Amino acid sequence: MFFEEFVVNYIWKGEMKRDMHHSTFGFPIKKIGIIGGGQLGKMLAQKAKQMGFYVISLDPSPECPAASVSDELIVSDFYNPEKLKEIVRKSDITTYEIEHINTAVLKDLYDKGYHIYPSPYCLEIIQDKFKQKQMFKNANLPVPRFEKVTHLDASFFEKFGFPCVQKASKGGYDGRGVVVIKDKEDLNKVLQTESFVEELVDIKKELAVMVARNKRGDVKSYPVVEMVFEQSANILDFLVAPARIDEKIAQRAREVAIKVVEALDGVGVFGVELFLTKDDEILINEVAPRPHNSGHYTIEACVTSQFEQHLRAICDLPLGSTKQLSPAVMINLLGEKDYKGRPKIEGLAESLSIEGVSFHFYGKKMTAPFRKMGHVTILDDDLEVAIEKAKKVKKILKIKAEV
Amino acid sequence: MFFEEFVVNYIWKGEMKRDMHHSTFGFPIKKIGIIGGGQLGKMLAQKAKQMGFYVISLDPSPECPAASVSDELIVSDFYNPEKLKEIVRKSDITTYEIEHINTAVLKDLYDKGYHIYPSPYCLEIIQDKFKQKQMFKNANLPVPRFEKVTHLDASFFEKFGFPCVQKASKGGYDGRGVVVIKDKEDLNKVLQTESFVEELVDIKKELAVMVARNKRGDVKSYPVVEMVFEQSANILDFLVAPARIDEKIAQRAREVAIKVVEALDGVGVFGVELFLTKDDEILINEVAPRPHNSGHYTIEACVTSQFEQHLRAICDLPLGSTKQLSPAVMINLLGEKDYKGRPKIEGLAESLSIEGVSFHFYGKKMTAPFRKMGHVTILDDDLEVAIEKAKKVKKILKIKAEV
Repeated sequence: MFFEEFVVNYIWKGEMKRDMHHSTFGFPIKKIGIIGGGQLGKMLAQKAKQMGFYVISLDPSPECPAASVSDELIVSDFYNPEKLKEIVRKSDITTYEIEHINTAVLKDLYDKGYHIYPSPYCLEIIQDKFKQKQMFKNANLPVPRFEKVTHLDASFFEKFGFPCVQKASKGGYDGRGVVVIKDKEDLNKVLQTESFVEELVDIKKELAVMVARNKRGDVKSYPVVEMVFEQSANILDFLVAPARIDEKIAQRAREVAIKVVEALDGVGVFGVELFLTKDDEILINEVAPRPHNSGHYTIEACVTSQFEQHLRAICDLPLGSTKQLSPAVMINLLGEKDYKGRPKIEGLAESLSIEGVSFHFYGKKMTAPFRKMGHVTILDDDLEVAIEKAKKVKKILKIKAEV
Repeated sequence: MFFEEFVVNYIWKGEMKRDMHHSTFGFPIKKIGIIGGGQLGKMLAQKAKQMGFYVISLDPSPECPAASVSDELIVSDFYNPEKLKEIVRKSDITTYEIEHINTAVLKDLYDKGYHIYPSPYCLEIIQDKFKQKQMFKNANLPVPRFEKVTHLDASFFEKFGFPCVQKASKGGYDGRGVVVIKDKEDLNKVLQTESFVEELVDIKKELAVMVARNKRGDVKSYPVVEMVFEQSANILDFLVAPARIDEKIAQRAREVAIKVVEALDGVGVFGVELFLTKDDEILINEVAPRPHNSGHYTIEACVTSQFEQHLRAICDLPLGSTKQLSPAVMINLLGEKDYKGRPKIEGLAESLSIEGVSFHFYGKKMTAPFRKMGHVTILDDDLEVAIEKAKKVKKILKIKAEV
């Protein structure tokens, strides 16, 4: 075991060490490992295949969206040390589409010289929302006022001040692990886990910026986008690109987002979620170390999609143009509330009759209420027309289930 | 055998008959069969997977470009009746990326009610270049003067007049099966096969128009593109979109192209190659019943790519917008002249540093001189700048082979 480790280590340190400059590609030009085979993994795999890469995906489900568009699939959960070692060793460069991975194993492999981007050290910081926030604060980047929850009694929250938001440090996603505490009455909702508390920001708009950075430190940002949420369910209603904000604010948002990724020493694309406050201040909400839902519009609307950009960044290739060619609106296609089972699409033909509609369906075998089953991007020269079209598609296109 | 045929026939006639209106899709939304797993099949499969289709490809090589991006691969040549029946029966809709297929088998299946688009009857006409030309002439569409070669002696060609072009009726592609006969001296080059002769048109430019038509007869054309050839080898040097021609001529070219596809009763996308003569006349050269090299630029430059458009057309879905969002130039990446073996890419990083470059590599296992290994599309607001960038990429980016 020691000897095998040693040999692998030795060979890779020689042939694959991370400061190697990739100006000539062999065949296959690169083996890319992707941990996670959901829709982000699928779209990343598809772009990698377009560029001639060999793709190895890892996912617990043999029927995951990425399975049928990859060269190889390793079936495993995201914490199995042996399987994580397998994908990293088989791949020239390994990346991931999810945050909840065993970073201990990845850090060990990274320290031995394997190419894993964004680095597991960067991922580890992002996995802990408190550490993340603390790092941005230390780098003098604008964050809402926050504090680690040291004891779960009323006095702590009262001292911090209402209204506030309690966030679990680890494990949350898609709104889970977040509780709004408006006043004392809400204290019964408090999360019984490692957490921090944050002021409830008076938000004008929620914004996001995709940022790409490669190993040599070249960095580019995409246009700022605006996330419009359904008030009731805290579900993204639609995403508007570019955001309907002042040019100066957009500039400021892009600068902050770039600084965030630089502070993380990030390599890859990053989704940086921001708040625009009622006072036109930009504050950092949180960061995803991977292609992001708010960057899907780049597939149709930008010169370089977020998926190609991620591949360029992790392969230390020059970054592509982030120019947007057309205004765009994106909506997620969620499983309808009362349906569970094999998905059935309603209203596709009618939706596709609307000029500028692109349809993405992830190929998940089962639908469930609010599950992300696909998305639609609408291009139109007039952003307001694109928004109207998006609203129409939302009404028509339904993901139900076979009876 | 008879009974099985009958049952299949009966079931399909009931469930799948061709006039069925597909407004609701089940799961998987459709099984698409693609005969041919080369680069066109690969790009078509990738778009189908993006839209959630289940993809079955058929190709002689288990390592063909489409293999790793399809759900299933049937390994077979394009004339094996059993294997062709298998893919058609397994698929809800079958299409193809090549012309050289056993149409007798496909016609039989089509007559039984299976969905095959473009129809094998349309394909059969296109397979015979003489029949194709004759059909366009009968429909009063503009074609160069041509005549069936009835006897291969000098007097026949002299009577037709020099210079002329002899074209094999069947089996030619990429310039094969075509001979230019400038004068009597050239008569030793005459092809000893079923053929026709055509006047050598005094060409100002070679143009192409992609046309999409669905079953209910909706039809759309893409912008006219200009194919610039290397004089020496008759190889496409680069493709310019849109063509640098007068708007009236462009309009005329798009009208002719649409009439061509209507004359063929074509369902799918078609590449219509045209001559623009020195007298500004538009003449039909030939037609491909499938996505086409001259339509690759649509992936990055247009709202709807030719591949998505093909899928919409054969599924009888509404056609997408053919609007071009940015000027574009496309170059093919051919295997370098003196290299054979496992491909090795030179100059990729430098090429990708040029703003607006998109890189496609088909994943063919072996390179050979002039083999199409990939392509590059360059977007730039200024078409002339895009052309300069394309020339630069051509100089830098080389497909060689491992030693």
